[in-house]
Amino acid sequence: MRPWLALALPLLIAAAPTQPAKSLSPKTQSAAEIIAASPASDWRALDPENTIYLELPAGRVIIELAPTFAPGHVANIKAMARAHYFDAAFVVRSQDNYVVQWSQPDEKKPMGGAQKTLKAEFDRANSPELPFTPLPDPDTYAPQVGFSGNFPAARDPGEGRAWLTHCYGMVGAGRDNDADSGGGSELYAVIGNAPRNLDRNVTLVGRVAQGIEILSVMPRGTGDLGFYEKPEQRIPIKSITVAADLPAAQRVDLESLRSDSATFAKLVEARRHRHDDWYKYASGRLDVCNARLPTRVHPAK
Amino acid sequence: MRPWLALALPLLIAAAPTQPAKSLSPKTQSAAEIIAASPASDWRALDPENTIYLELPAGRVIIELAPTFAPGHVANIKAMARAHYFDAAFVVRSQDNYVVQWSQPDEKKPMGGAQKTLKAEFDRANSPELPFTPLPDPDTYAPQVGFSGNFPAARDPGEGRAWLTHCYGMVGAGRDNDADSGGGSELYAVIGNAPRNLDRNVTLVGRVAQGIEILSVMPRGTGDLGFYEKPEQRIPIKSITVAADLPAAQRVDLESLRSDSATFAKLVEARRHRHDDWYKYASGRLDVCNARLPTRVHPAK
Repeated sequence: MRPWLALALPLLIAAAPTQPAKSLSPKTQSAAEIIAASPASDWRALDPENTIYLELPAGRVIIELAPTFAPGHVANIKAMARAHYFDAAFVVRSQDNYVVQWSQPDEKKPMGGAQKTLKAEFDRANSPELPFTPLPDPDTYAPQVGFSGNFPAARDPGEGRAWLTHCYGMVGAGRDNDADSGGGSELYAVIGNAPRNLDRNVTLVGRVAQGIEILSVMPRGTGDLGFYEKPEQRIPIKSITVAADLPAAQRVDLESLRSDSATFAKLVEARRHRHDDWYKYASGRLDVCNARLPTRVHPAK
Repeated sequence: MRPWLALALPLLIAAAPTQPAKSLSPKTQSAAEIIAASPASDWRALDPENTIYLELPAGRVIIELAPTFAPGHVANIKAMARAHYFDAAFVVRSQDNYVVQWSQPDEKKPMGGAQKTLKAEFDRANSPELPFTPLPDPDTYAPQVGFSGNFPAARDPGEGRAWLTHCYGMVGAGRDNDADSGGGSELYAVIGNAPRNLDRNVTLVGRVAQGIEILSVMPRGTGDLGFYEKPEQRIPIKSITVAADLPAAQRVDLESLRSDSATFAKLVEARRHRHDDWYKYASGRLDVCNARLPTRVHPAK
């Protein structure tokens, strides 16, 4: 007996299969079949100028930055990366069902043109030019949830504000008690159940597009809040690099399904109403943090 | 700068502090202060007859079984444990943001009086004697969510059914496509964002009360669905034992806050409306899977 629990979709999907998708009615199409049948135009390449590579002993973690929501922090993080601020930084914290966090212990290390602290970017105006594809189901925390570009997001049309949501794999800027005390020199990634009470309390700067499983298995720290108690427990970071600064051969060309595409809409429906043989009960619902955006290596690369 | 992200409460809390809680108005009490001020009568010891110890190379994982929701599976799992069915079993699967799963590869191993498969226990009657403390906020997946005893749960009063919810740390019985093809010989624990679409599709048999961080850091399997591809990658299980079968000195005496206590109600409110200095925005909401029940070693032990 080899069960079961057929997962909708891994966070990262390998190159699309070369064989044509099985011809099934939309009612019975699986997530994999919907993706296999998607036109290339439903996918969008990640922008190397807004993608950073976190290089760890166990491999590369690829983070897509979100300048639409956190322009100041994104520019700041890129400036730090380009000043090699994160070279010889460390993962200093791994708290179960919560976050993994990294920082540069050398407080005097030059930051290039970057600022140590910045004005918070917890949310932004819900202006008409902000892309937003709503999801159909109610959310515990926000009046409306969905995707803005490649990022899970929420908005309050009445209040006129929009913000990124703390889903698994989201990356944020640690701060002290003052709202404006962060800046991106300490970053964390969510590795547990979505801590949505952090929404609008921290500046989210992006999402892990590949390699979250490198961060999520790091031994949990035994200090308060999951900090490592001994310096030798920290996991060294070789560097953080802006993808655009690397030669093409050293990049990983990722693309994500467009959240405003017909394929993604089909995928959401397939996940709300599971029709494969394994599922016996379809909730007809999907949480924003379970509506993960497929990301893959570009099939031609 | 040492941030931040003050977590409400770790999954397991050490023995209560001996100093009295700081005297603060209820409005500003933190979760830790609320717990420190709780009377002993608001806590309930786990029943050793419905607690099992999963012994792994990295330590012990303690699982509280849920006979109220899955009486057949709980009896079956205990019968298997008592027949030493799980001795020399293996963790065979670790899928990022989803589940860790274990089973006995020796299909011919005697199961004692246990059955290989059982009738599904996906949900149960929402009868008047079923304890249920509702949470106040809307849920994406169910008409009502809350806690039933020590377990996160949902119910549909109209339909007259109640069920356990797939929160972080919940333990379920793997199955094949047939609803009645599980029985507890293959078990999984949730190690990612709550996969609530599994609710009412799998028999949940309990929750990890201590040691989930031993399971959640297991290297992810590179095969389909996170199965380990090589037998040598599997993580050996020494045994699964019913706590009641061990001498008292070999047990860990855990207790959980009663979900129907005044202390838990206060804790829920504190998490919905964060008042500590770090939080700038209170959602006023709390998801069932973020309303984790405090569990600790009994202070007198």
